[in-house]
Amino acid sequence: MAEESGVTADLPVKRQREDGESEDNGGVSVSVELEDSGCNHNELENMSSVIPGWFSEISPMWPGEAHSLKVEKILFQGKSEYQNVIVFQSSTYGKVLVLDGVIQLTERDECAYQEMITHLPLCSIPNPKKVLVIGGGDGGVLREVSRHASVEQIDICEIDKMVIDVSKQFFPRVAVGYEDSRVTLHIGDGVAFLKAVPQGTYDAVIVDSSDPIGPAQELFKKPFFESVAKALRPGGVMCTQAESIWLHMHIIEDIVSNCRQIFKGSVNYAWTTVPTYPSGVIGFMLCSTEGPTVDFKHPVNPIDADESHCKSNGPLKFYNSEMHTAAFCLPSFAKKVIDSKAK
Amino acid sequence: MAEESGVTADLPVKRQREDGESEDNGGVSVSVELEDSGCNHNELENMSSVIPGWFSEISPMWPGEAHSLKVEKILFQGKSEYQNVIVFQSSTYGKVLVLDGVIQLTERDECAYQEMITHLPLCSIPNPKKVLVIGGGDGGVLREVSRHASVEQIDICEIDKMVIDVSKQFFPRVAVGYEDSRVTLHIGDGVAFLKAVPQGTYDAVIVDSSDPIGPAQELFKKPFFESVAKALRPGGVMCTQAESIWLHMHIIEDIVSNCRQIFKGSVNYAWTTVPTYPSGVIGFMLCSTEGPTVDFKHPVNPIDADESHCKSNGPLKFYNSEMHTAAFCLPSFAKKVIDSKAK
Repeated sequence: MAEESGVTADLPVKRQREDGESEDNGGVSVSVELEDSGCNHNELENMSSVIPGWFSEISPMWPGEAHSLKVEKILFQGKSEYQNVIVFQSSTYGKVLVLDGVIQLTERDECAYQEMITHLPLCSIPNPKKVLVIGGGDGGVLREVSRHASVEQIDICEIDKMVIDVSKQFFPRVAVGYEDSRVTLHIGDGVAFLKAVPQGTYDAVIVDSSDPIGPAQELFKKPFFESVAKALRPGGVMCTQAESIWLHMHIIEDIVSNCRQIFKGSVNYAWTTVPTYPSGVIGFMLCSTEGPTVDFKHPVNPIDADESHCKSNGPLKFYNSEMHTAAFCLPSFAKKVIDSKAK
Repeated sequence: MAEESGVTADLPVKRQREDGESEDNGGVSVSVELEDSGCNHNELENMSSVIPGWFSEISPMWPGEAHSLKVEKILFQGKSEYQNVIVFQSSTYGKVLVLDGVIQLTERDECAYQEMITHLPLCSIPNPKKVLVIGGGDGGVLREVSRHASVEQIDICEIDKMVIDVSKQFFPRVAVGYEDSRVTLHIGDGVAFLKAVPQGTYDAVIVDSSDPIGPAQELFKKPFFESVAKALRPGGVMCTQAESIWLHMHIIEDIVSNCRQIFKGSVNYAWTTVPTYPSGVIGFMLCSTEGPTVDFKHPVNPIDADESHCKSNGPLKFYNSEMHTAAFCLPSFAKKVIDSKAK
């Protein structure tokens, strides 16, 4: 990996906006301290630098606002076949993984996302045995799945090997998930992978994707959800990253509407707090296929007190059964829209 | 109010950090577009401008991170006896009120804070009649209190008249709370006001304060909580702004510990999502005095379906009974600390 940090010669860290506009109109970008970063100084000096020493996150997905973290040191910059990858040491959120200019995880708050996206589905069904993770290359979801003693097989399909390598190098407490012997890693396209899965294979599919702009685009579309439903056993469950109720109600409406057509069991929206995600929240779409009824709001497979088999993973920091049920309670403005689509 | 925007001659908008350090070390400040703002151009040009056209929030209360909003137009800048006051039109969060460099409310997300800080206490007791609001000069809490038909008397004690005037001018849908004939406004120090209140006067006291640095400092200390407890009837309730579980567990520990000593009824912590507050969440300390038992987690006085008497206030956007109960569910890391102090 060390060699790859030289890749920056072709990598302007500043993100190109998808709408083709430049970011000069108050745009935000990355500027970094140069000492010991192993980066190409000339490249960094050429970057637009609006908050010296800070990383700021801007995107047409959340126009008019930006969250910034103070950078202590850039640890890695690379350009994979799919996206720009940055890891930096922040001054107060630990190490931070950034893909295409968007924060994916920080050491300080990753527990909230990883624990909720995993245990919301897995604690909602008895004895999950076969689990598929789409995306989630950092390994955090694997770490959480591996807390479940009933699980016998954990498949993961991640498109971008650089994300996996970077996580193993810089986020060992996240990538620890890969050390579980039940894990089989497939590097490739999740959409294609799912199409090849025999019908009814999995008890649970967890889709840990980035935003629907970029490589994860297809993971928010109807054909993908159809493949997921087919890959699940009757009464099997899907949990997919489903954006923010404060920012993306239109995307959420579409996801709920698509899922309601495809999943003939339960269709529910849940959310949680993640400080370094835009608007401070992230949502999850929870669906089950026709078969044994799944009541997502009332976990039947709690793990709160059962941590004996996951010493290497550390204790749960965020998830508990109360938070599980609470996650499905929605503010009135969101409940109104989601309930109308989920019926 | 229009004249007061000339006050900027003595008002560098850039916030002085309370620890005496300058903000040059990657500090964030305000820069504004000048056209039609009615501001003193020379003063604005002298301001440190690190993100042209954006307002950024930095504070020793949340080191190493900053949330920024794009500014369309500065509508007001003034310096009151207590604090710097700014109102600006943001590009995506509506109008924004800033006190001493810290965002107090935006039109887009103020519903979450105002509805939760008000209805968590008022829906937890039957037929509240007398309510005191400390702080809350913008009027949003008044707007929410006035939805409760049982309430006969609403007193508010706000220290800073400029906040009230600015809210009435720029945030009419928030300041609408002042139009309720049950409201009596007292301009002055909340600590002194409470000391003069006859014992057992109020059913509920709502403390809508800014952070414990600056004018609201005393509102987080034990003597203040003692005054609140004295001002409440037996089984009366207090709800106070109580910071972020992600950022301020040490402050929260102290608040819980102080309240547990002073309030002999229930002592519970709740939280909600507010995108423009640091870390995206804000918490509330809910306490009751000795007397009829208050079970904060299970509202006895719901208002979900009862909106007939509040047409001028608009419908509830955020609060509902499910959100009420869910607000008391805490992530494991916070639950552990808070439960240990609340017993």
